[in-house]
Amino acid sequence: MSFAASIITLYPEMFPGHLGVSLAGKALEEGAWSLETIALREFGKGRHKQVDDTPSGGGAGMVLRADVLGEAIDSISDPNGGARPRLLMSPRGRVLDQTYVRELAEGTGAVIVCGRFEGVDQRVIEARGLMEVSIGDYILSGGEPAAMILLDAIVRLLPGVMGNEQSGTHESFEAGLLEHPHYTRPQEWEGMAIPEILTSGNHKKIAEWQREQAEKLTRERRPDLLK
Amino acid sequence: MSFAASIITLYPEMFPGHLGVSLAGKALEEGAWSLETIALREFGKGRHKQVDDTPSGGGAGMVLRADVLGEAIDSISDPNGGARPRLLMSPRGRVLDQTYVRELAEGTGAVIVCGRFEGVDQRVIEARGLMEVSIGDYILSGGEPAAMILLDAIVRLLPGVMGNEQSGTHESFEAGLLEHPHYTRPQEWEGMAIPEILTSGNHKKIAEWQREQAEKLTRERRPDLLK
Repeated sequence: MSFAASIITLYPEMFPGHLGVSLAGKALEEGAWSLETIALREFGKGRHKQVDDTPSGGGAGMVLRADVLGEAIDSISDPNGGARPRLLMSPRGRVLDQTYVRELAEGTGAVIVCGRFEGVDQRVIEARGLMEVSIGDYILSGGEPAAMILLDAIVRLLPGVMGNEQSGTHESFEAGLLEHPHYTRPQEWEGMAIPEILTSGNHKKIAEWQREQAEKLTRERRPDLLK
Repeated sequence: MSFAASIITLYPEMFPGHLGVSLAGKALEEGAWSLETIALREFGKGRHKQVDDTPSGGGAGMVLRADVLGEAIDSISDPNGGARPRLLMSPRGRVLDQTYVRELAEGTGAVIVCGRFEGVDQRVIEARGLMEVSIGDYILSGGEPAAMILLDAIVRLLPGVMGNEQSGTHESFEAGLLEHPHYTRPQEWEGMAIPEILTSGNHKKIAEWQREQAEKLTRERRPDLLK
């Protein structure tokens, strides 16, 4: 049983996109996760397969219809037999962080609804138990790019995906701190040398220095993380 | 003069990806923005075109070399004649929000460095004035997906891109609040009706209700936005 992602979208051609390349792409090929797209347009109403309509009460933009999205959600069966969380990518949602990513990666998968237009009819959010998830406090053209970020973050945590390619444990946020500065060869570049301590061979001192640097950086840039 | 994006990446084949579809893709075709990728590998050293090396002081992962990245950055000329901001997608960076997106969209473009591996040699960050930008507190497989989010958010704000397709002004964050619930036809769905007030035709009352709902939602979900 591998992590199963089902994406409801008006733009199935956007997938797998960058998720088909590099780390996530290799993991997809090897079956560490699966990706299915559900074309929302197929559930549209009438001759024009309409999926949206004008907002009740007036205003700009268009709203995804509850009946159309409801049927699209109901068409999905679960490859792993259990209920997967149903997520709606939305700037109103719970803000994604590494803890939430880890929580989702430990599950059996996710049904991900990509919003477009002004928003999604509130009734389908409630009736189908959609959990709104936001990747950050900015506005995107739609939910698709956000869904790809969510999956990219999840996939690298799935069993067998990272191997030795990346460390996975010692990195930003995992210890509640931003990462310390990194250096590598050449020893000197444009007159700047690697800090002496890092080439001292004293592993205890190096670890102390890295910890100090990480704390300093976090205090300066992201004091909110230290609370 | 249109917004010029230059991306330094080990995976140029990831671009334009979803930025070639829908709103951003149409804007790219029409010249509202331009996208250039610089293959970092071409600046690699030796027979194997090496771009990274082991971290000074030990530890897991690999670090992008200062000399390699420095040369890649120096190879870029500016189509608009002025200096564009140089951004490094990194979880240590300034957290992206809609204000920052707007600021970038008002400029002439951006040079965007996509990190991979454990990190980037600190010396090139300082010597080339790279501004670290984070799209959120989670770890991605690399900077490429983050760069695509940044561009997606910027492109929709460029002159002539949105037209009437989306409202652009009345939306999440623009007023410092999350968006109120939306509804559209059908009037009744699965026994749930659209709130009466929205079909009352009383625009003043509707605007009041929407404002109240937005405030309530923001208080419940994101009290941090109200500060």
